[in-house]
Amino acid sequence: MEDWILALLQTARVARLATIDPTGQPHVLPIVFAFDGQRLFTPLDGKPKRVEGLQLQRVRNITANEQVAVVIDTYSEDWQQLAWVQLRGHASLISDGIDYDSGIVLLREKYPQYAVTPLLGRPLIQISQLQTRSWRADPQN
Amino acid sequence: MEDWILALLQTARVARLATIDPTGQPHVLPIVFAFDGQRLFTPLDGKPKRVEGLQLQRVRNITANEQVAVVIDTYSEDWQQLAWVQLRGHASLISDGIDYDSGIVLLREKYPQYAVTPLLGRPLIQISQLQTRSWRADPQN
Repeated sequence: MEDWILALLQTARVARLATIDPTGQPHVLPIVFAFDGQRLFTPLDGKPKRVEGLQLQRVRNITANEQVAVVIDTYSEDWQQLAWVQLRGHASLISDGIDYDSGIVLLREKYPQYAVTPLLGRPLIQISQLQTRSWRADPQN
Repeated sequence: MEDWILALLQTARVARLATIDPTGQPHVLPIVFAFDGQRLFTPLDGKPKRVEGLQLQRVRNITANEQVAVVIDTYSEDWQQLAWVQLRGHASLISDGIDYDSGIVLLREKYPQYAVTPLLGRPLIQISQLQTRSWRADPQN
Protein backbone atom coordinates (compact mmCIF):
# COMPACT_ATOMS: atom_id res chain seq x y z
CA MET A 1 0.00 0.00 0.00
CA GLU A 2 1.47 3.37 -1.03
CA ASP A 3 2.28 5.90 1.70
CA TRP A 4 -0.33 8.45 0.64
CA ILE A 5 -3.06 5.80 0.67
CA LEU A 6 -2.15 4.59 4.13
CA ALA A 7 -1.97 8.18 5.40
CA LEU A 8 -5.42 8.94 3.99
CA LEU A 9 -6.93 5.80 5.51
CA GLN A 10 -5.43 6.58 8.90
CA THR A 11 -6.24 10.28 9.08
CA ALA A 12 -9.53 10.82 7.24
CA ARG A 13 -12.33 11.62 9.68
CA VAL A 14 -15.22 10.43 7.55
CA ALA A 15 -15.83 7.87 4.81
CA ARG A 16 -18.88 6.77 2.83
CA LEU A 17 -20.18 3.21 2.98
CA ALA A 18 -22.17 1.65 0.13
CA THR A 19 -24.33 -1.41 0.75
CA ILE A 20 -26.97 -3.20 -1.29
CA ASP A 21 -30.45 -3.83 0.06
CA PRO A 22 -32.29 -7.14 -0.42
CA THR A 23 -34.05 -5.74 -3.53
CA GLY A 24 -30.71 -4.93 -5.20
CA GLN A 25 -30.91 -1.16 -4.60
CA PRO A 26 -27.65 0.50 -3.51
CA HIS A 27 -27.52 2.64 -0.36
CA VAL A 28 -24.74 4.99 0.68
CA LEU A 29 -24.20 6.87 3.95
CA PRO A 30 -21.37 8.70 5.71
CA ILE A 31 -19.56 6.78 8.44
CA VAL A 32 -16.88 7.36 11.02
CA PHE A 33 -14.33 4.60 10.94
CA ALA A 34 -10.98 3.27 12.10
CA PHE A 35 -8.49 1.36 9.96
CA ASP A 36 -6.02 -1.07 11.51
CA GLY A 37 -3.96 -1.68 8.37
CA GLN A 38 -6.07 -4.62 7.24
CA ARG A 39 -9.62 -4.04 8.39
CA LEU A 40 -11.97 -1.16 8.74
CA PHE A 41 -14.32 -0.75 11.71
CA THR A 42 -17.41 1.44 11.93
CA PRO A 43 -19.89 1.54 14.82
CA LEU A 44 -23.63 1.30 14.84
CA ASP A 45 -24.12 4.51 16.76
CA GLY A 46 -26.52 4.98 19.59
CA LYS A 47 -28.75 7.71 18.27
CA PRO A 48 -32.29 8.95 18.79
CA LYS A 49 -35.07 6.57 17.92
CA ARG A 50 -35.80 8.10 14.55
CA VAL A 51 -32.61 6.70 13.04
CA GLU A 52 -32.92 3.23 14.49
CA GLY A 53 -34.72 2.16 11.34
CA LEU A 54 -31.84 3.36 9.17
CA GLN A 55 -29.33 1.53 11.33
CA LEU A 56 -31.43 -1.58 10.96
CA GLN A 57 -31.58 -1.02 7.21
CA ARG A 58 -27.80 -1.10 7.07
CA VAL A 59 -27.70 -4.24 9.17
CA ARG A 60 -30.34 -5.91 7.01
CA ASN A 61 -28.35 -5.00 3.91
CA ILE A 62 -25.06 -6.48 5.06
CA THR A 63 -26.84 -9.54 6.43
CA ALA A 64 -28.39 -10.14 3.01
CA ASN A 65 -25.25 -9.17 1.07
CA GLU A 66 -21.87 -8.93 2.76
CA GLN A 67 -20.28 -7.18 -0.21
CA VAL A 68 -19.74 -3.50 0.54
CA ALA A 69 -17.63 -0.62 -0.72
CA VAL A 70 -16.15 2.34 1.12
CA VAL A 71 -14.67 5.49 -0.35
CA ILE A 72 -12.31 7.88 1.42
CA ASP A 73 -11.52 11.01 -0.54
CA THR A 74 -10.23 14.54 -0.37
CA TYR A 75 -12.16 17.30 -2.06
CA SER A 76 -10.45 20.54 -2.93
CA GLU A 77 -11.37 23.44 -5.20
CA ASP A 78 -7.94 22.86 -6.70
CA TRP A 79 -8.79 19.80 -8.72
CA GLN A 80 -5.11 18.91 -8.96
CA GLN A 81 -5.43 17.95 -5.27
CA LEU A 82 -8.27 15.47 -5.76
CA ALA A 83 -7.67 11.93 -4.56
CA TRP A 84 -9.67 8.93 -3.50
CA VAL A 85 -9.24 5.44 -2.17
CA GLN A 86 -11.99 2.88 -2.66
CA LEU A 87 -12.06 -0.24 -0.51
CA ARG A 88 -14.25 -3.16 -1.39
CA GLY A 89 -14.66 -5.96 1.09
CA HIS A 90 -16.83 -8.22 3.17
CA ALA A 91 -18.83 -6.75 6.03
CA SER A 92 -19.76 -8.57 9.21
CA LEU A 93 -21.42 -7.47 12.41
CA ILE A 94 -19.40 -8.09 15.56
CA SER A 95 -20.37 -7.43 19.17
CA ASP A 96 -17.69 -9.18 21.22
CA GLY A 97 -14.33 -10.94 20.99
CA ILE A 98 -10.79 -9.82 20.25
CA ASP A 99 -11.64 -8.13 16.93
CA TYR A 100 -14.46 -6.21 18.58
CA ASP A 101 -12.25 -5.04 21.44
CA SER A 102 -9.58 -3.97 18.96
CA GLY A 103 -12.10 -1.97 16.91
CA ILE A 104 -13.46 -0.22 20.00
CA VAL A 105 -9.95 0.80 21.10
CA LEU A 106 -9.10 2.19 17.66
CA LEU A 107 -12.33 4.16 17.39
CA ARG A 108 -11.88 5.64 20.87
CA GLU A 109 -8.29 6.65 20.10
CA LYS A 110 -9.29 8.30 16.84
CA TYR A 111 -12.47 10.09 17.94
CA PRO A 112 -12.38 12.05 21.22
CA GLN A 113 -16.15 12.39 20.76
CA TYR A 114 -16.49 8.86 22.11
CA ALA A 115 -15.38 10.10 25.52
CA VAL A 116 -18.90 11.51 25.94
CA THR A 117 -20.78 9.17 23.58
CA PRO A 118 -20.33 5.71 25.06
CA LEU A 119 -19.25 3.14 22.49
CA LEU A 120 -18.73 -0.07 24.43
CA GLY A 121 -21.57 -2.53 24.02
CA ARG A 122 -22.59 -1.27 20.59
CA PRO A 123 -22.10 -3.59 17.63
CA LEU A 124 -19.42 -2.77 15.08
CA ILE A 125 -19.40 -3.41 11.36
CA GLN A 126 -16.05 -4.99 10.48
CA ILE A 127 -15.01 -4.81 6.83
CA SER A 128 -12.25 -7.23 5.84
CA GLN A 129 -10.69 -8.93 2.80
CA LEU A 130 -10.13 -5.44 1.45
CA GLN A 131 -9.41 -4.78 -2.20
CA THR A 132 -8.02 -1.33 -2.84
CA ARG A 133 -8.42 1.00 -5.79
CA SER A 134 -7.08 4.50 -5.72
CA TRP A 135 -6.63 7.56 -7.85
CA ARG A 136 -4.86 10.92 -7.58
CA ALA A 137 -5.18 13.78 -10.02
CA ASP A 138 -1.50 14.56 -9.59
CA PRO A 139 0.78 11.71 -8.47
CA GLN A 140 3.43 14.30 -7.53
CA ASN A 141 1.35 15.73 -4.67
CA MET B 1 -38.36 19.21 0.34
CA GLU B 2 -37.23 20.98 3.51
CA ASP B 3 -35.17 24.17 3.16
CA TRP B 4 -31.99 22.73 4.68
CA ILE B 5 -32.10 19.76 2.30
CA LEU B 6 -32.52 21.95 -0.75
CA ALA B 7 -29.73 24.25 0.46
CA LEU B 8 -27.38 21.30 0.95
CA LEU B 9 -28.18 19.86 -2.50
CA GLN B 10 -27.59 23.23 -4.14
CA THR B 11 -24.41 24.24 -2.35
CA ALA B 12 -22.45 21.04 -1.60
CA ARG B 13 -19.34 20.82 -3.80
CA VAL B 14 -18.96 17.05 -3.74
CA ALA B 15 -21.17 14.00 -3.37
CA ARG B 16 -20.58 10.25 -3.44
CA LEU B 17 -22.21 7.99 -6.00
CA ALA B 18 -22.87 4.31 -5.36
CA THR B 19 -23.46 1.93 -8.25
CA ILE B 20 -23.63 -1.85 -8.55
CA ASP B 21 -21.42 -3.76 -10.95
CA PRO B 22 -22.71 -6.65 -13.08
CA THR B 23 -21.54 -9.17 -10.43
CA GLY B 24 -23.62 -7.47 -7.71
CA GLN B 25 -20.65 -5.75 -6.02
CA PRO B 26 -21.23 -2.15 -4.91
CA HIS B 27 -18.87 0.64 -5.99
CA VAL B 28 -18.70 4.15 -4.58
CA LEU B 29 -16.77 7.19 -5.79
CA PRO B 30 -16.77 10.94 -5.21
CA ILE B 31 -18.48 13.06 -7.86
CA VAL B 32 -19.01 16.70 -8.67
CA PHE B 33 -22.64 17.35 -9.47
CA ALA B 34 -25.39 19.87 -10.14
CA PHE B 35 -28.98 19.61 -8.92
CA ASP B 36 -31.84 21.30 -10.78
CA GLY B 37 -34.50 20.66 -8.15
CA GLN B 38 -35.56 17.35 -9.64
CA ARG B 39 -32.53 15.75 -11.22
CA LEU B 40 -28.86 15.44 -10.49
CA PHE B 41 -26.18 15.68 -13.19
CA THR B 42 -22.59 14.49 -12.97
CA PRO B 43 -20.06 14.49 -15.82
CA LEU B 44 -17.81 11.75 -17.08
CA ASP B 45 -14.67 13.80 -16.78
CA GLY B 46 -11.93 13.92 -19.31
CA LYS B 47 -8.96 12.64 -17.39
CA PRO B 48 -5.65 10.93 -18.07
CA LYS B 49 -5.81 7.51 -19.61
CA ARG B 50 -5.25 5.62 -16.39
CA VAL B 51 -8.74 6.44 -15.14
CA GLU B 52 -10.58 5.70 -18.35
CA GLY B 53 -11.12 2.17 -17.13
CA LEU B 54 -12.78 3.42 -13.97
CA GLN B 55 -15.01 5.76 -15.94
CA LEU B 56 -15.95 2.83 -18.13
CA GLN B 57 -16.60 0.75 -15.01
CA ARG B 58 -19.13 3.32 -13.85
CA VAL B 59 -20.79 3.36 -17.26
CA ARG B 60 -20.91 -0.43 -17.38
CA ASN B 61 -22.48 -0.48 -13.93
CA ILE B 62 -25.30 1.92 -14.71
CA THR B 63 -25.89 0.26 -18.07
CA ALA B 64 -26.31 -3.09 -16.29
CA ASN B 65 -28.23 -1.63 -13.32
CA GLU B 66 -29.75 1.84 -13.47
CA GLN B 67 -30.42 1.93 -9.73
CA VAL B 68 -27.95 4.22 -7.98
CA ALA B 69 -27.65 6.10 -4.71
CA VAL B 70 -25.96 9.41 -3.93
CA VAL B 71 -25.13 10.86 -0.53
CA ILE B 72 -24.44 14.51 0.22
CA ASP B 73 -23.34 15.16 3.78
CA THR B 74 -21.63 17.59 6.10
CA TYR B 75 -18.93 16.32 8.43
CA SER B 76 -18.00 18.32 11.49
CA GLU B 77 -16.03 17.48 14.63
CA ASP B 78 -19.10 18.78 16.46
CA TRP B 79 -21.31 15.77 15.91
CA GLN B 80 -24.38 17.88 16.67
CA GLN B 81 -23.75 19.43 13.23
CA LEU B 82 -23.82 16.16 11.30
CA ALA B 83 -26.35 15.87 8.50
CA TRP B 84 -26.86 13.90 5.34
CA VAL B 85 -29.21 13.59 2.40
CA GLN B 86 -29.38 10.34 0.47
CA LEU B 87 -30.91 10.32 -3.00
CA ARG B 88 -31.81 7.08 -4.70
CA GLY B 89 -32.80 7.14 -8.33
CA HIS B 90 -32.36 5.93 -11.86
CA ALA B 91 -29.19 6.79 -13.76
CA SER B 92 -28.94 7.26 -17.49
CA LEU B 93 -26.14 8.40 -19.75
CA ILE B 94 -26.95 11.43 -21.90
CA SER B 95 -24.79 13.11 -24.52
CA ASP B 96 -27.14 15.52 -26.31
CA GLY B 97 -30.61 17.05 -26.19
CA ILE B 98 -32.31 19.56 -23.92
CA ASP B 99 -31.56 17.70 -20.67
CA TYR B 100 -27.90 17.43 -21.60
CA ASP B 101 -27.68 21.14 -22.44
CA SER B 102 -29.36 21.98 -19.15
CA GLY B 103 -26.96 19.81 -17.16
CA ILE B 104 -23.92 21.35 -18.86
CA VAL B 105 -25.14 24.89 -18.07
CA LEU B 106 -25.73 24.03 -14.41
CA LEU B 107 -22.32 22.36 -14.00
CA ARG B 108 -20.56 25.31 -15.62
CA GLU B 109 -22.37 27.78 -13.39
CA LYS B 110 -21.54 25.84 -10.26
CA TYR B 111 -17.90 24.96 -10.97
CA PRO B 112 -15.61 27.72 -12.27
CA GLN B 113 -13.07 24.92 -12.84
CA TYR B 114 -14.95 24.07 -16.03
CA ALA B 115 -13.76 27.34 -17.54
CA VAL B 116 -10.40 25.66 -18.05
CA THR B 117 -11.52 22.01 -18.20
CA PRO B 118 -13.82 21.84 -21.22
CA LEU B 119 -17.08 20.07 -20.50
CA LEU B 120 -19.10 20.29 -23.69
CA GLY B 121 -19.10 17.06 -25.64
CA ARG B 122 -18.61 14.84 -22.62
CA PRO B 123 -21.44 12.52 -21.61
CA LEU B 124 -23.33 13.25 -18.40
CA ILE B 125 -24.91 10.83 -15.99
CA GLN B 126 -28.43 12.05 -15.25
CA ILE B 127 -30.06 10.72 -12.09
CA SER B 128 -33.83 11.12 -11.95
CA GLN B 129 -36.93 9.76 -10.19
CA LEU B 130 -35.24 10.74 -6.96
CA GLN B 131 -36.30 9.38 -3.60
CA THR B 132 -34.95 11.36 -0.68
CA ARG B 133 -33.92 10.27 2.78
CA SER B 134 -32.32 12.65 5.18
CA TRP B 135 -31.08 12.93 8.73
CA ARG B 136 -29.76 15.69 10.99
CA ALA B 137 -28.26 15.15 14.42
CA ASP B 138 -29.95 18.31 15.65
CA PRO B 139 -33.09 19.44 13.81
CA GLN B 140 -32.68 22.90 15.42
CA ASN B 141 -29.49 23.67 13.49
